[in-house]
Amino acid sequence: MACRGILVGSAARNTWLSGDRDIDIFIAVPEDGNLGDALEIAREIAPVHEERYAEHAYVHARIDGFDVDLVPCYDVRDPSKIKSAVDRTPFHSRYVSERIRGLEDEVLLLKQFMKGVGVYGSDLRTGGFSGYLAELLVIRYGSFLRVLEGASSWRPGTRINLAPGANIMAPLVVIDPVDPKRNVAAALTLDRMFQFVAAARCFLRSPDISFFFPLEAHTMSPDEIRAEIERRGTEFILLEIDAPDMVDDVLYPQMRKAEASIKNLLEREGFQVLRSDVDLVRGEDVRARLLFELSIWELPSVRIHIGPPVWEADHVSRFVKGHTSPLSGPYIDNGRLVVEIPRRYRKAVDLLEGEVHKISLGKHLSSGRIRTLSKREILEGVDESLAEFLTAYLNKRVRVC
Amino acid sequence: MACRGILVGSAARNTWLSGDRDIDIFIAVPEDGNLGDALEIAREIAPVHEERYAEHAYVHARIDGFDVDLVPCYDVRDPSKIKSAVDRTPFHSRYVSERIRGLEDEVLLLKQFMKGVGVYGSDLRTGGFSGYLAELLVIRYGSFLRVLEGASSWRPGTRINLAPGANIMAPLVVIDPVDPKRNVAAALTLDRMFQFVAAARCFLRSPDISFFFPLEAHTMSPDEIRAEIERRGTEFILLEIDAPDMVDDVLYPQMRKAEASIKNLLEREGFQVLRSDVDLVRGEDVRARLLFELSIWELPSVRIHIGPPVWEADHVSRFVKGHTSPLSGPYIDNGRLVVEIPRRYRKAVDLLEGEVHKISLGKHLSSGRIRTLSKREILEGVDESLAEFLTAYLNKRVRVC
Repeated sequence: MACRGILVGSAARNTWLSGDRDIDIFIAVPEDGNLGDALEIAREIAPVHEERYAEHAYVHARIDGFDVDLVPCYDVRDPSKIKSAVDRTPFHSRYVSERIRGLEDEVLLLKQFMKGVGVYGSDLRTGGFSGYLAELLVIRYGSFLRVLEGASSWRPGTRINLAPGANIMAPLVVIDPVDPKRNVAAALTLDRMFQFVAAARCFLRSPDISFFFPLEAHTMSPDEIRAEIERRGTEFILLEIDAPDMVDDVLYPQMRKAEASIKNLLEREGFQVLRSDVDLVRGEDVRARLLFELSIWELPSVRIHIGPPVWEADHVSRFVKGHTSPLSGPYIDNGRLVVEIPRRYRKAVDLLEGEVHKISLGKHLSSGRIRTLSKREILEGVDESLAEFLTAYLNKRVRVC
Repeated sequence: MACRGILVGSAARNTWLSGDRDIDIFIAVPEDGNLGDALEIAREIAPVHEERYAEHAYVHARIDGFDVDLVPCYDVRDPSKIKSAVDRTPFHSRYVSERIRGLEDEVLLLKQFMKGVGVYGSDLRTGGFSGYLAELLVIRYGSFLRVLEGASSWRPGTRINLAPGANIMAPLVVIDPVDPKRNVAAALTLDRMFQFVAAARCFLRSPDISFFFPLEAHTMSPDEIRAEIERRGTEFILLEIDAPDMVDDVLYPQMRKAEASIKNLLEREGFQVLRSDVDLVRGEDVRARLLFELSIWELPSVRIHIGPPVWEADHVSRFVKGHTSPLSGPYIDNGRLVVEIPRRYRKAVDLLEGEVHKISLGKHLSSGRIRTLSKREILEGVDESLAEFLTAYLNKRVRVC
């Protein structure tokens, strides 16, 4: 069985950032071959290893202080006809290697800038720029500074074609030169894109080393957190949900969906979420943290319930039969029948305790145990990971000028 | 000078309700004549009188226990070419007189029904049905019951033509048979129209004397009011505004406009009005009362302030310069720059005390002294007129089934 090893990623083209200790080696089997053979080779290369899973199994090993991934893939001829998602990587590597000579420092500047301003990483938690995307931008614009200049006038839907490609809608469209159906910037969110744009404008106006190496954020003490929360005058509710031990890219999208569903539940019942965020804590067990800051968390006993237009006689009859003793009404407002009825939940925290298990929180979170913490309970239990999460939350800020 | 007297209104056609003591006599001068001559005659007829003003001066006198209005008008040939609003009335009177014979009792039933269910009166406070409109409906449908049957299937924009007429948009369009440009139901509001429709359906389903003569509403005691307000768990704010001594039809539209402006001010700042109402108190002085019931009356110190999209570089620069030390941010949400800043008014009552004099409250209310009463102050000062107002407010209800 003819397998071949391919060094890919930034290590293959001198564009790895200092501090990065990742080496990616792909082990390619022929198109009609068996990935299991490549996995067997990987196990032999690194007898001490851990087996990990993305779309397929691969081997992770720590060798001489480096994190080495040994990844089986198919040696396909045409990158638009891959059999596994990783099969495209060797083509990316070759495309960049052939064009990046002399531009390596520009790539390093751009990657470190992206890292410094918080937009580097195409994982689903970050939703930012991948290394390959940074490289393509340098190839397209010619230098680090020209990328920033170009980005200064990006708008949503900006399209950068290194090759002709499909008509894709996204905040930023960078057609993959090795696969014209694919957007290299598919993971980039609108907000991360413009976090980069805003920082680029600031840097061009007044360049500074801190864009690349920002000061380490000081984690607030529990007392500082308490004071800041009191100053805001809002209510906080924290949901802690037990999660299975799965990778971030699986759990984060589900946490974001759960966050949106819960926000929706709160606002449907008349409460108001000022802001919210999610965090994943990996310790002995894995816990999803969903934080909600509320501007309205307590409501009166009575609420308005709007019924059908009075000219719809059948609906009106049914509505009247369904509300025989309202607090007020029925009366007519703007042509519709209205009753004022008691509210089920006067407090947001009671609503969540009573109803959150009835809504869909996504496949891996729905079965987990849920703890609902009020502001008082949050402030009583500030451990290190929660302090970091709340510090980031309370100091949310992007570079803009 | 050849003037002639014309008995108009319900007294002229045997359709006045028991208890009504109004007699309208018009004194018509020739088209090229002078209304002053007719006014002079009116003064001679009723030496003891009071002069009142609508579009023009007229004489009001109390004669043998009747309220007699002696109204100067022009004796025009063509009712579509009137010189004063009252000139049309003799034509209405003639039109109805010629068609109402034998239907007088039907008109009386309809008027008393409208009165009983609270929709009789085309004054701008009531926004209901005029006597003339009731008469036209009986002429059109043929009887009291057939009016109710017809109304049961009215929808917004229903058009009833007794003659061809203009293309008018209104909740109910009843073209004036003596003036095809005019909608007899112009003063009728959508909600009063359907209050009538809903009551008509109920009556047809289960007729009852109480539709004509409802039980007198019991005015709640201050303790009952307090208990009911506590039960609702809402906040109440009452504005009392000094008003000039003008007729209801002048003041009520302005009070409604002021009510809408204040509701708007409250909701623009994040508070929420559950319901509101207005009342006019005529005693030694005239006071407009604007009552607001709030479901949200207190908000946190911090509020979200949404700025421009990040791709609009100039707007972003200005926005950043305008918010140099926000509580949080700037950050990007959905492509827009956002800061979290201190709220000006955390309490609705403070907002009104601080800002209500800055918004337009209408010509005759803007100059009046304004008192802002909180729930506690309202409950401490419940006089008889306020008790009636609050009783009506808390028991707002229409007949519907």
